[in-house]
Amino acid sequence: MSDALSKAPQPRHHDALWQNRRVLITGGLGFIGSTLARRLAGLGADVLVVDSMVPEYGGNLFNLDGCEGQVRTNISDIRDPYSMRHLVGDRELVFNLAGQTSHLDSMHDPFTDLAINCTAQLSLLEICRKHNPAAKIVFASTRQIYGRPQYLPVDERHPLNPVDVNGINKIAGESYHMLYNQVYGLRSTVLRLTNTYGPRMRIKDARQTFLGVWLRAVIEGRPFEVWGGEQLRDFTYVDDAVDALMLMAGNDALDGKAFNLGGDGIVSLRETAETLVKVSGGSFAIREFPAERKRIDIGDYYGDDGAFRAVSGWTPRVSLEEGLRRTVAFYRQHLDRYL
Amino acid sequence: MSDALSKAPQPRHHDALWQNRRVLITGGLGFIGSTLARRLAGLGADVLVVDSMVPEYGGNLFNLDGCEGQVRTNISDIRDPYSMRHLVGDRELVFNLAGQTSHLDSMHDPFTDLAINCTAQLSLLEICRKHNPAAKIVFASTRQIYGRPQYLPVDERHPLNPVDVNGINKIAGESYHMLYNQVYGLRSTVLRLTNTYGPRMRIKDARQTFLGVWLRAVIEGRPFEVWGGEQLRDFTYVDDAVDALMLMAGNDALDGKAFNLGGDGIVSLRETAETLVKVSGGSFAIREFPAERKRIDIGDYYGDDGAFRAVSGWTPRVSLEEGLRRTVAFYRQHLDRYL
Repeated sequence: MSDALSKAPQPRHHDALWQNRRVLITGGLGFIGSTLARRLAGLGADVLVVDSMVPEYGGNLFNLDGCEGQVRTNISDIRDPYSMRHLVGDRELVFNLAGQTSHLDSMHDPFTDLAINCTAQLSLLEICRKHNPAAKIVFASTRQIYGRPQYLPVDERHPLNPVDVNGINKIAGESYHMLYNQVYGLRSTVLRLTNTYGPRMRIKDARQTFLGVWLRAVIEGRPFEVWGGEQLRDFTYVDDAVDALMLMAGNDALDGKAFNLGGDGIVSLRETAETLVKVSGGSFAIREFPAERKRIDIGDYYGDDGAFRAVSGWTPRVSLEEGLRRTVAFYRQHLDRYL
Repeated sequence: MSDALSKAPQPRHHDALWQNRRVLITGGLGFIGSTLARRLAGLGADVLVVDSMVPEYGGNLFNLDGCEGQVRTNISDIRDPYSMRHLVGDRELVFNLAGQTSHLDSMHDPFTDLAINCTAQLSLLEICRKHNPAAKIVFASTRQIYGRPQYLPVDERHPLNPVDVNGINKIAGESYHMLYNQVYGLRSTVLRLTNTYGPRMRIKDARQTFLGVWLRAVIEGRPFEVWGGEQLRDFTYVDDAVDALMLMAGNDALDGKAFNLGGDGIVSLRETAETLVKVSGGSFAIREFPAERKRIDIGDYYGDDGAFRAVSGWTPRVSLEEGLRRTVAFYRQHLDRYL
């Protein structure tokens, strides 16, 4: 077993059940997808990852460094229905993590966001319906669909009022997954992620989360900017998010439903910045919110993930401080592979 | 003035304001679009209608019979951004009524529904944002977005749980319209229609509403089938729906908001059938719901349109009985143009 895999979290989720499971991970060279691929490969699953390697997205070949022999990698775009039909094949499980995630990009180029987050999702579901109806599908959605919270914490009954094209399209994407369960009986389920962070996240820019920009700055020895500072957020460490995705895959009672995923607690951006500086050194400055960001800012957000915890037994195992410590250590070692 | 136009309803909505207004109506050869075009032309507006004439949709050249000289007609598809850019031009008002409306078609061919109800809507909004940001846009949405009612009457705060791909895509379509108001200040507003009926509706099949099939049967002297019979519905006569669209266009306080439109009252399908038979003769039989329809049936539905009535002063002026009488009279005269 490679050094990287030996560092995987201790077993849970009936880990033995993953042995030889035929798994497809879309967006599998990205941040969460690759972390999931590494975990499942370590448990003996037959893992196929698909990724488009679009430079603005999360795909990075280095994310599978050290376990290339245990994971099959296929470069392809989920917008291409022919390759996807072949790749879905007879996979037992599809972790559908491919997506356009940048809020600003969705406003500057709404059609690309639509093609990836709507059309390609519908295409994947049609492929499963026609050619592999027994496959289990776990779809990664986002808290972005709720928009500005009308109350806190935000539970799954909160109205959906997205503040950008990305949020609108992600609603359609997850709705297709639930509809295909209700109408055709596809075994699909939806997890709404909040800010996920950890090793292998995109730090080149803020396309995945602002935390990426902060991390890069502290590793490079520069101060970073905190916009506002008092906004409240919740964060999920990537290994905890992977736990949650695996629990969803293993529980058919969750089919046709959408669940929030939260994290270890609620913190302000200022507290988050202070925690980062505590584990990494460096410094930050509080700045006013830039105008272009302001109009799609959502104020405070934190989710209620009680429903998911109750049905799955999931709890976060990595605190924000510990998660940031691990993340900083990863990028101190591998910064050059992420710029 | 043609015979057809002289039958238009009596003036209201500051009708004089429509003189020379530059209006674009997408789906303008369809049922509601053509009725609106006839009304506005009669008030002296400069009306341009765009319609794709896709055979499965509502477009019918005969719908503008008698007022061809007063309305400009351009055959084009809203999926074609080049022609749309030209046609949007410097129109002051866009009634955006083009859409794929069939629930079953959206399940059999979800990509076409997506292209028309999502991609083309986004394209139209991008065109307006870039080239005609002062245009007012009135978008026709549908009660189908609510899915199976969780309570009755359904108001605008009711959760959106569509039971078909069409409903999911219409949510995205109307959400784009509201987002472009919030983010870019476009003057767009959304009206959620329920069952609309009247002269010029599609009666060839059930793609617009089941009422079309009933009407055709009674005109052709055949009994018609009522599936179920006890389901409750509300209906809007087309002239009342046109009133509502015109009121929306004239009231900037409604921008960025979505409103339900209802009708004259709540009736069961059986009562509706009895009213139709009363005004037209003929007969019907109650049948069990077909299986393919059952899985996308929503049970009882009727809307609460109190919010729209309060802000606009709208009330329906044509009862179901009177509306069906006018509709039957129209098709007795023009049946051959609608088969």
